[in-house]
Amino acid sequence: MTPTARRSPTQVSVMVCLGVCAIALLVPAAAPAQLLPFPKQDLIDYTAHNPFDRLPDGRPKVPDDLIERARGLSSEEVWAVLEEKGFHNQYADGFHVLYPGKTMAGRAFTVQFMPLRSDVEEVAKSKAKEHGVSRLTNQTAIDMLQPGDVLVVDLFGKKVNGTIVGDNLFFYVMKATHSGGLVVDGSVRDLDGISEIDMPAYFRAVDPTPIGNVMLTGINVPVRVGGVTVMPGDLVVGDREGVYFVPPQLVKEVLDHADETHIHDEWTKKKFDEGKYKSSEIYGSPSDPKLQQEYQEYLKRRLEEIRKQRSSK
Amino acid sequence: MTPTARRSPTQVSVMVCLGVCAIALLVPAAAPAQLLPFPKQDLIDYTAHNPFDRLPDGRPKVPDDLIERARGLSSEEVWAVLEEKGFHNQYADGFHVLYPGKTMAGRAFTVQFMPLRSDVEEVAKSKAKEHGVSRLTNQTAIDMLQPGDVLVVDLFGKKVNGTIVGDNLFFYVMKATHSGGLVVDGSVRDLDGISEIDMPAYFRAVDPTPIGNVMLTGINVPVRVGGVTVMPGDLVVGDREGVYFVPPQLVKEVLDHADETHIHDEWTKKKFDEGKYKSSEIYGSPSDPKLQQEYQEYLKRRLEEIRKQRSSK
Amino acid sequence: MTPTARRSPTQVSVMVCLGVCAIALLVPAAAPAQLLPFPKQDLIDYTAHNPFDRLPDGRPKVPDDLIERARGLSSEEVWAVLEEKGFHNQYADGFHVLYPGKTMAGRAFTVQFMPLRSDVEEVAKSKAKEHGVSRLTNQTAIDMLQPGDVLVVDLFGKKVNGTIVGDNLFFYVMKATHSGGLVVDGSVRDLDGISEIDMPAYFRAVDPTPIGNVMLTGINVPVRVGGVTVMPGDLVVGDREGVYFVPPQLVKEVLDHADETHIHDEWTKKKFDEGKYKSSEIYGSPSDPKLQQEYQEYLKRRLEEIRKQRSSK
Amino acid sequence: MTPTARRSPTQVSVMVCLGVCAIALLVPAAAPAQLLPFPKQDLIDYTAHNPFDRLPDGRPKVPDDLIERARGLSSEEVWAVLEEKGFHNQYADGFHVLYPGKTMAGRAFTVQFMPLRSDVEEVAKSKAKEHGVSRLTNQTAIDMLQPGDVLVVDLFGKKVNGTIVGDNLFFYVMKATHSGGLVVDGSVRDLDGISEIDMPAYFRAVDPTPIGNVMLTGINVPVRVGGVTVMPGDLVVGDREGVYFVPPQLVKEVLDHADETHIHDEWTKKKFDEGKYKSSEIYGSPSDPKLQQEYQEYLKRRLEEIRKQRSSK
Amino acid sequence: MTPTARRSPTQVSVMVCLGVCAIALLVPAAAPAQLLPFPKQDLIDYTAHNPFDRLPDGRPKVPDDLIERARGLSSEEVWAVLEEKGFHNQYADGFHVLYPGKTMAGRAFTVQFMPLRSDVEEVAKSKAKEHGVSRLTNQTAIDMLQPGDVLVVDLFGKKVNGTIVGDNLFFYVMKATHSGGLVVDGSVRDLDGISEIDMPAYFRAVDPTPIGNVMLTGINVPVRVGGVTVMPGDLVVGDREGVYFVPPQLVKEVLDHADETHIHDEWTKKKFDEGKYKSSEIYGSPSDPKLQQEYQEYLKRRLEEIRKQRSSK
Amino acid sequence: MTPTARRSPTQVSVMVCLGVCAIALLVPAAAPAQLLPFPKQDLIDYTAHNPFDRLPDGRPKVPDDLIERARGLSSEEVWAVLEEKGFHNQYADGFHVLYPGKTMAGRAFTVQFMPLRSDVEEVAKSKAKEHGVSRLTNQTAIDMLQPGDVLVVDLFGKKVNGTIVGDNLFFYVMKATHSGGLVVDGSVRDLDGISEIDMPAYFRAVDPTPIGNVMLTGINVPVRVGGVTVMPGDLVVGDREGVYFVPPQLVKEVLDHADETHIHDEWTKKKFDEGKYKSSEIYGSPSDPKLQQEYQEYLKRRLEEIRKQRSSK
Repeated sequence: MTPTARRSPTQVSVMVCLGVCAIALLVPAAAPAQLLPFPKQDLIDYTAHNPFDRLPDGRPKVPDDLIERARGLSSEEVWAVLEEKGFHNQYADGFHVLYPGKTMAGRAFTVQFMPLRSDVEEVAKSKAKEHGVSRLTNQTAIDMLQPGDVLVVDLFGKKVNGTIVGDNLFFYVMKATHSGGLVVDGSVRDLDGISEIDMPAYFRAVDPTPIGNVMLTGINVPVRVGGVTVMPGDLVVGDREGVYFVPPQLVKEVLDHADETHIHDEWTKKKFDEGKYKSSEIYGSPSDPKLQQEYQEYLKRRLEEIRKQRSSK
Repeated sequence: MTPTARRSPTQVSVMVCLGVCAIALLVPAAAPAQLLPFPKQDLIDYTAHNPFDRLPDGRPKVPDDLIERARGLSSEEVWAVLEEKGFHNQYADGFHVLYPGKTMAGRAFTVQFMPLRSDVEEVAKSKAKEHGVSRLTNQTAIDMLQPGDVLVVDLFGKKVNGTIVGDNLFFYVMKATHSGGLVVDGSVRDLDGISEIDMPAYFRAVDPTPIGNVMLTGINVPVRVGGVTVMPGDLVVGDREGVYFVPPQLVKEVLDHADETHIHDEWTKKKFDEGKYKSSEIYGSPSDPKLQQEYQEYLKRRLEEIRKQRSSK
Repeated sequence: MTPTARRSPTQVSVMVCLGVCAIALLVPAAAPAQLLPFPKQDLIDYTAHNPFDRLPDGRPKVPDDLIERARGLSSEEVWAVLEEKGFHNQYADGFHVLYPGKTMAGRAFTVQFMPLRSDVEEVAKSKAKEHGVSRLTNQTAIDMLQPGDVLVVDLFGKKVNGTIVGDNLFFYVMKATHSGGLVVDGSVRDLDGISEIDMPAYFRAVDPTPIGNVMLTGINVPVRVGGVTVMPGDLVVGDREGVYFVPPQLVKEVLDHADETHIHDEWTKKKFDEGKYKSSEIYGSPSDPKLQQEYQEYLKRRLEEIRKQRSSK
Repeated sequence: MTPTARRSPTQVSVMVCLGVCAIALLVPAAAPAQLLPFPKQDLIDYTAHNPFDRLPDGRPKVPDDLIERARGLSSEEVWAVLEEKGFHNQYADGFHVLYPGKTMAGRAFTVQFMPLRSDVEEVAKSKAKEHGVSRLTNQTAIDMLQPGDVLVVDLFGKKVNGTIVGDNLFFYVMKATHSGGLVVDGSVRDLDGISEIDMPAYFRAVDPTPIGNVMLTGINVPVRVGGVTVMPGDLVVGDREGVYFVPPQLVKEVLDHADETHIHDEWTKKKFDEGKYKSSEIYGSPSDPKLQQEYQEYLKRRLEEIRKQRSSK
Repeated sequence: MTPTARRSPTQVSVMVCLGVCAIALLVPAAAPAQLLPFPKQDLIDYTAHNPFDRLPDGRPKVPDDLIERARGLSSEEVWAVLEEKGFHNQYADGFHVLYPGKTMAGRAFTVQFMPLRSDVEEVAKSKAKEHGVSRLTNQTAIDMLQPGDVLVVDLFGKKVNGTIVGDNLFFYVMKATHSGGLVVDGSVRDLDGISEIDMPAYFRAVDPTPIGNVMLTGINVPVRVGGVTVMPGDLVVGDREGVYFVPPQLVKEVLDHADETHIHDEWTKKKFDEGKYKSSEIYGSPSDPKLQQEYQEYLKRRLEEIRKQRSSK
Repeated sequence: MTPTARRSPTQVSVMVCLGVCAIALLVPAAAPAQLLPFPKQDLIDYTAHNPFDRLPDGRPKVPDDLIERARGLSSEEVWAVLEEKGFHNQYADGFHVLYPGKTMAGRAFTVQFMPLRSDVEEVAKSKAKEHGVSRLTNQTAIDMLQPGDVLVVDLFGKKVNGTIVGDNLFFYVMKATHSGGLVVDGSVRDLDGISEIDMPAYFRAVDPTPIGNVMLTGINVPVRVGGVTVMPGDLVVGDREGVYFVPPQLVKEVLDHADETHIHDEWTKKKFDEGKYKSSEIYGSPSDPKLQQEYQEYLKRRLEEIRKQRSSK
């Protein structure tokens, strides 16, 4: 679509790490492009359980192969482990799902906006200028995206002027994240254009207006989406129901549990397909010890097959 | 998905025919598997207009060939006859429709739940035990489904923990009913899995939680879904708009009326296709006596063709 | 208002104990006026924890003096005990509250309606006639109300034609229950008239139409209101927030706990009033052992005073 | 479906130019079929900026080739020009979109309904009869549709009995308008049938009832749809987000601007595809003067190509 | 509040009788202040059943004494007669009611707005100027109000910039109509100020913005409010539930019927107060012939008393 | 009510300045009780336009006499100045208003919560302990309130477990702020108790549950309430419509403008009361130069009177 910059000021300003941080901590020496970071040390402190490497910006780096495996997950499989571990608030739904049949998986790259307030914006702009940042918009954040990222945006449910991207920037996000994905508690524009671009997306609404009347207030800070506190680096998993934000330390367990579930589903449906059993004889777990044994053997065998298959890749 | 029984108690309890029945009437001699029936005699009394045979559980048995013909129905065709007969409350809509292009038709198998209340549940459990029923969950009802049934569930619109089935049980229902269908004033889980299983389904929402915090309170009892009182054995017809519950005594008339409507539609569109007429010259009925006659002859001829075609099957 | 019977048939029919009961059980010898009871024995079984006497219709009879004490309850005080006892579904809100400053307390007298269906209604009517019941409407239930009752009606949220009473019947209910109260998951009419009658009421909506297009399907049966399963005889407590349905066996504990809470509130506010403490030094409980002791003594003394006061009445 | 005229009076009456016009002005000599026109002169006055020819009924006639070009528009492209020109209220959304991937473009043919009121209806009927109009229904308007029209109906959001067409009339509209389209702030029926007919449609709801309990009060009068004042002859553009109503005088500018936008999108995505640039280096406009120049040349070249392509058709 | 004219153009323009009328008909000789009337003759034609005099602007003039009596009406009493007469769409609810305990009664003075559209507005302005009307805003209509009027405004539910009046103009309306009243399918501003002014008002919302982004398109034209077609001169009756719009020809019958209802209510409550009867013995009508006779005598006597009382005034 | 600490862990944890601040900046030497401040310097930077003194915590201190004057403000009066100054997002409505007739005015003391996440909470707790903070709940913030404060809480609209205070803490807030007020984008509990305490309050809902399942994440940080970015120290003004958050630098202008508006209203209503003028002759501003002059003199005289009156206090 027409670049908004040509025809109307986007009115997206920025608050440089909104009054919450010592400037010195803001700009890691090694990443001068990152103007509005969540200070790396805090990010590291608050995600201390992360068992994986970290990205240069400090976010936990869920490994690529686990992200790949996560594409086989469904909301229910994530639910089972997170609920057991006491994480009751990691699921958000009620989105328009761009590609219902396509699972989204990637690392959360978070962005936060607040309603525009000109007195605050003015200060933010001048602070930004002091740090050599001339232009502060949604693109400031978008330009920082990495392969494997899912862009997670808190636009407080805004529809009109709450459009984080149109088709051009959606295309850019797709390229930059290698089709990672988008979750926005806000809206998008150019749905016709977006519908031709191959990247999963979850949004609240669609509107023809460009983003505006808001201030960019945080990049890779903890954000709220639906009833979830999303941390930068969370594994984001989206299916046709909704989106799960998985803390890195639970990723492995979620995936291993899902393997068992897939096998259990295979076996259950196979049994149902035979037409000899009532549902309760087979599911949740077989009542007959013999069937129970049959299942355990099936599970063991299939798990081994899966592991072999995986290691051979 | 992971069988819920393994990781969290489903919390689905049962009230044995909730305080409304003499226990002796509950378990028809011939159907010991039916633990929570609507007493057969009452069901028979309240569906006395049923012109067809009955299933062993007492439900009217709309014949298979009529169910087959019902797959050609749309909501409007049902509306026409029911409205005329004074049935103003047999239509429910506002559902998520799993397969918009696929008509659902089958016999209503009804199930009712109420919010969990531990004092009542405790009594219900002990009553159930007295009758040799060890485990009382949604599966108790599901295990009783017959070919040609549509599972109709009153879960009072519950989303979280209102998930009557996930993909495994959905698969079982599909097998047991021969793809009859599901209507739930509540939710389902595992939508990704369900979307691969070939059975029509109408639900209010999707949620990753398993069913819980409810009590199973009735099987094949009259239930409320949307603004409809559904009786066990009703013909359930679902199209892409919503669901109609047709009393058995009206099924034949609905279908015959629909035959005429289909022919009328054929003829109307054929005439419109000729491009010579204003809509009001042809529709609702032709204003010109000659056209009227042409239509009547067309109708007669086509009705005969349809009947021949049917009898030759 | 104009008696609806004069100008339009109320269309409220009845299903005699909707297909769920043996007729013989329906009419207790001692209460021939009760045409549609929840069989007394089942009611007794499912409320077996009731520590009090019972009304002739079998409902637990929370004593009058406890009902009187319950007028001092608030939703929060009920919540505390019920939550602890594992009752998570006993609270309903979202009502229009007729008298926000006036607490409602009484015994649940429950009524259930379902959407009208003429084939079922016809059978119900003829069954009723066999039992000598000539007229079956909302008034059939209303005429059975006792002093101390709160009329609890499940009209499935219906607004138009979901008006359980207008001002005349509201007046009757007030007289019959001694200003017990009304909770309806449906509507009322004649709000102007009702607003002059001194009885607490909770309703979803107001509409000028009379009740209609529904069938009376149960009296003193378990009903659903909001997300609650209400049992006949529950203590119903309504404040300006919403309505709690307290199982009889918990009434005493709820009330005693409330006594302590009232004293705790007195003391807390007295301390806050002194202006010497931060909130966390006093509330939830005093951090300073000396204050803790002061509180305990205050509590003991006030409890004794309250008890004396009560026994002296 | 069954023609409603056979089984229930449609109850759609008409107010002949509801009390707002001198009868003499109503029936233009040249168009006796138009019983309820917005007087031609007023329509001409209020659309005085129209740069195109007019239809015989006085509506601006956006040329066919521009309508064809408009099929390439998206909501955002229209937004850009209309916003700049001070038209802030020309977009309506929140519709069910029948064919999300198919752009709708055509000339607005407007129809207005109001809630039925028998005293007004009676007068309207007798006025109509004086003018030789015997039957006044939704079909009266539908019969006046022209190729290239989009039927735009103000049914004030009515769902039940707010169904402007079922499948037969939808088919007729498709034939009469040459697949122009339908926008109704109300509902349709026969969605199953409609889904097989190739014409874009935007509606608020679906219902099995026929249109009724309303009066036809205006044909080709200014109407309100969502927050838009639609004038007869507006260019109606619908994509998968919503519907834009473009005043004829802006059509050319909207289309030319869209050409540039399409080229800008092409170039932007091409650049993003190269993977060498951050989004802000390219979009909204290239920051590097060399890139800027590259773009300008690309734009010029492509515009020429497009124009050649168009003129060669 | 601050007059909006000082700080922001109200943006309320006018379409002179929106393209629907011959200008010559617009300005009745005797009422030069009425710039945008619904032509008097049409108004007279469409309200031909009016049994009363007419106001100079052509509206039916329900007599003052009947308006006074109408202050004793409730929605239910109006419902009874209108329903019987086949008027099913004359009631609107869902408003904020300024004075719940104060009945509103008066003659409908209707005003209609549409979303602003600058091209149409421009024409309207120039047409207005030709007729010597320099300023066209909500005040143009408000300045035409008469004693006994209720201002009925169709602002299509608009909240922001849909504020028909603030406290100053509300005060003016109160003075001009002699506390007649206001019904707006839109909003008001200055609720604090309005709450001190003694006039009934029904509105959808409250907002601090002034009216704007709309065009005044009709004065005393038929308008839609909720699901009602309101005709100028209708008797408007508002109680704490909602608003009824009574066609003039039914006013007398509604009032007479209400007299009987009031007496019936008196008698019914008196009987209930005696505590000797079940509700069904007395209400709708007494079952015992003796009680029936008692009631008939009471009714007769009280009707006479009321009539005497009225005639003696 | 029962102190929640006794019966259930409040589950309110804290994130020490959620990963955004250098710990050293957090605890101003002079205010060791403030564990989670927005660093004083940032607060000062971002509120640099503040023309008044500051509170010890760095917040702008709108003077007490201006707060007193602000009790005479209405939403519309604030709107006029803020709109003109380009502040379009400072108004929030849709609240339950505890005392509709009582204006709220005070300095914003802001608090932010996020959904609970146990991994983050654990880190926060251990960070807090390092700083000697043993208990971190809503009371941590409440204990820091000052006279003249309005407690402004971002609980993201949470109802269940989103109850910032019950009656005891509401009482404490009333005492601590000298009846300043409460605005919560969340809920309260103990409405019965709260209704007896004299402090203005604005909340989204009421619920019997205590606060829980959330983390306290910021005290006196910028927060979002409705569509507003609230800065600590904003003047909060609430009337019966909603709440305005006025930047300190605009307070004086808002108040002075309101003086003129009050006088204008006085004069306007006085003129309307005379009954000689049409509304447009007087309002917005008098059309007749003589009246204009009369008004100007009235304005001048009354302004002087008001100023004298004020200075004499």
